[in-house]
Amino acid sequence: MQAKNGAAVAGLAEALAARLGVDCVLTGDEMSTYCRDWHGDVTSGAVAVLRPRDTQGVADAVRACAELDLQIVPQGGNTGLVLGAVPDAPERQVVLSLERMKTVRNIDADDFSAVVEAGAILSEFKDKVEEQGMFFPLALGAQGSCRIGGNVSTNAGGINVLRYGMTRELVLGLEVVLPDGSIFDGISTLRKDNRGLDLKQLFIGAEGTLGIVTAVAVKLVPLPEKVSTALLGLNSLEDAITLYRRARRECCDLLSAFEFMPPIAFTLAKEAMPDLPEPIATDYPAYVLMEISGSGLVDIDALMEAFLEGVLGDGLVVDGAVATSTAQARNLWLVREGMNEGQAKRGPHLRTDVSVPLSRLADFVADAEAAVKAELPDCISVSYGHVGDGNVHLNVLPPAGADRAVIDRKIYEAKQVVNAVLDRYHGSISAEHGIGRLKRGDFTTRLSPVRHQMLKAIKQAIDPRHMMNPGCQLNFDTE
Amino acid sequence: MQAKNGAAVAGLAEALAARLGVDCVLTGDEMSTYCRDWHGDVTSGAVAVLRPRDTQGVADAVRACAELDLQIVPQGGNTGLVLGAVPDAPERQVVLSLERMKTVRNIDADDFSAVVEAGAILSEFKDKVEEQGMFFPLALGAQGSCRIGGNVSTNAGGINVLRYGMTRELVLGLEVVLPDGSIFDGISTLRKDNRGLDLKQLFIGAEGTLGIVTAVAVKLVPLPEKVSTALLGLNSLEDAITLYRRARRECCDLLSAFEFMPPIAFTLAKEAMPDLPEPIATDYPAYVLMEISGSGLVDIDALMEAFLEGVLGDGLVVDGAVATSTAQARNLWLVREGMNEGQAKRGPHLRTDVSVPLSRLADFVADAEAAVKAELPDCISVSYGHVGDGNVHLNVLPPAGADRAVIDRKIYEAKQVVNAVLDRYHGSISAEHGIGRLKRGDFTTRLSPVRHQMLKAIKQAIDPRHMMNPGCQLNFDTE
Repeated sequence: MQAKNGAAVAGLAEALAARLGVDCVLTGDEMSTYCRDWHGDVTSGAVAVLRPRDTQGVADAVRACAELDLQIVPQGGNTGLVLGAVPDAPERQVVLSLERMKTVRNIDADDFSAVVEAGAILSEFKDKVEEQGMFFPLALGAQGSCRIGGNVSTNAGGINVLRYGMTRELVLGLEVVLPDGSIFDGISTLRKDNRGLDLKQLFIGAEGTLGIVTAVAVKLVPLPEKVSTALLGLNSLEDAITLYRRARRECCDLLSAFEFMPPIAFTLAKEAMPDLPEPIATDYPAYVLMEISGSGLVDIDALMEAFLEGVLGDGLVVDGAVATSTAQARNLWLVREGMNEGQAKRGPHLRTDVSVPLSRLADFVADAEAAVKAELPDCISVSYGHVGDGNVHLNVLPPAGADRAVIDRKIYEAKQVVNAVLDRYHGSISAEHGIGRLKRGDFTTRLSPVRHQMLKAIKQAIDPRHMMNPGCQLNFDTE
Repeated sequence: MQAKNGAAVAGLAEALAARLGVDCVLTGDEMSTYCRDWHGDVTSGAVAVLRPRDTQGVADAVRACAELDLQIVPQGGNTGLVLGAVPDAPERQVVLSLERMKTVRNIDADDFSAVVEAGAILSEFKDKVEEQGMFFPLALGAQGSCRIGGNVSTNAGGINVLRYGMTRELVLGLEVVLPDGSIFDGISTLRKDNRGLDLKQLFIGAEGTLGIVTAVAVKLVPLPEKVSTALLGLNSLEDAITLYRRARRECCDLLSAFEFMPPIAFTLAKEAMPDLPEPIATDYPAYVLMEISGSGLVDIDALMEAFLEGVLGDGLVVDGAVATSTAQARNLWLVREGMNEGQAKRGPHLRTDVSVPLSRLADFVADAEAAVKAELPDCISVSYGHVGDGNVHLNVLPPAGADRAVIDRKIYEAKQVVNAVLDRYHGSISAEHGIGRLKRGDFTTRLSPVRHQMLKAIKQAIDPRHMMNPGCQLNFDTE
């Protein structure tokens, strides 16, 4: 396709408005927030932003785009971290936002299930579910802005994965508009259904490259009535992993979160939140934030107390603070949240999202941090994450006050250093964030020929015209 | 392809032996157990049975079959209930048995994971895992004979699904030989890995129609050290479902099994096991066998006691027996196992494996049993199953002593009656057994055009020559 001039692009936008109604189509400055990524690092443009009101409207939009030879970038809350929902060809792409499709179609507490449209904001959906005494366990930092369709399309993780699984494990059914405009009606709340291939699995984590998720049926669990949260100081990351294994056994399936942090977490959090409470000394080599929760007849507080008595007695945990109220629990989580804000305040830095087998986590972090120190001595590594999932965010902060060009180079070099160590551990360059456009190169270069061939064959089978989110995950036109 | 005479078929078997080694190829009478289904209802034949020793051997076998224009029916323990692993074109199909690939490649208790080859027998694998203090939660009647590759290919369910999920949720990685003989090396124990499409999902539940699973990486959980089992008498199935909801809340994520049975379960079990103990009166309208389990610091016995105190006090449960030893727990499960044997002893009958949303389970069973009674008054309905999953085995026993032709007709009619009610409830005709060849017709007639089109497109993408398990799930050559 040839580059188009402004008039040609405007003509396409008008054609879309004629077919779908002006109400459905945004152009010009109204598109800016839809064409910018969450961090504000990348700003792009589009022919138009389409905002259909219902599933049929999405199907109509897909057909209109096909007729006009336009490509579609589906978008939920646009909170992704890998540019999966940001267009990269402004003259031939539209953003299709699901933000108007927010209806909670059904919450059935007796069935432990709900059906919700793709544009519902995660936290709003969770609140509605909780009003009925139930709980939707997906929990992540962006939950006040991200939308459930995006969570499905990126197979979102978060802090409760070790107990409840990734989004994939919470999905019972999907409704998807396919690239030919037909509707895959896979909404079902059946827990068990072995009727042939489980086609919905294809769309979970596909980042919109095979179709547009318009509604989701999900599992619910009973709302945990009792939550016990503890912040613990330890002598090493290795001890933190030993502690996880022990918590997994001793607290059984009631362990719901287990995050580790380095001592610099407090420094960073304080830079963002000067009044941050310090419930324990801030100079232990490693910290764990753990949560056990449940409803019903199990005494959660007694369980936490018995567990901590054992691990403090053995010296595996050196110090600890247990929240005795929801407000105190909130305060303990502030360190984990504040450290992210603190990193952001220090300016651009390398954010990774890697995973290795749990049994190799401590070695990996030690090796990767040592490699960063050797190659980039003026940078600081900050490793934290979800121990139970083997998922580390090993971030690297460039020296304060450096030029942007220097910073960008350091970030690039740090990524190469971390990935080189990661490859030795057969780890994943994307544990939970996805590939999007940001990690496409690093993904593609690591792809085996067999896997590459399968990805192309599946794309060809479902989206032969490469209309859905081109440039995301793989560049099928050229790779 | 034209029908071949015996000499032509023998020539193909010789050609396979020449390529793969005589040791790998069975022919003649040696094939009989591989060409017969688990119940002994169907006997077929094949060009040969291939028994490769390793993954490369499977790949070589696939290439040899492609050269000779032969189709492949992959087979694990051949314990499936829907003829998914039984050939149906003896002159052009080979059975590829994974039975020699039994190696447990790795058990890593520190990583909560294991890697095992497809031919390992489920119970033998579970035993090896338990020696290391870990637990692989898949549990089903056939576990002494079924093989893990078959469990993956059929996405097996079983009695622990409500807590640990179907096989899909236990799989971390797969190694698969594809129809072109290439090897998809997806063995990985990463808990979180969002690098593009999760291709392994395609092969789980595919019943060997897209490739041959040769090895599996699975999740392990800590071995439950304490198990409490109770057999409870109730006034109705509706009460049993209310009890499930309450158990799910009050026992939290420690509930590991919840099976319901009708009173006829005792009659049937006694026909198979005359010495069956009767721990409670056998004339309540409904029974529940429930199990809670855990390791570590939670007092499982106290939890069961507190739970039962509440539900007996409220009258939701009328009577109950709690096992105080492993032997007693075994005895309680005997009813559940014996009722299956008792049904088998009564001769051919309708076995269904349906699911509906949990909130509609009691209504569905009442409606379906009433319909059977109205249409087939001389038949007996026996409904039991996994309440927490909405999965009922609603079986229908024809009158004793009827002619085989009458019995077959009654079985067919009963299936039509049950499926007609099921369709009104938007249920699944196959909750856990799969489609195979037995349910292909009922599956195909219920398939939406969009889903049908997608299945064909996926098949075309991965197995364009329709070489893998043709006739299973869909007949892609004609449908």
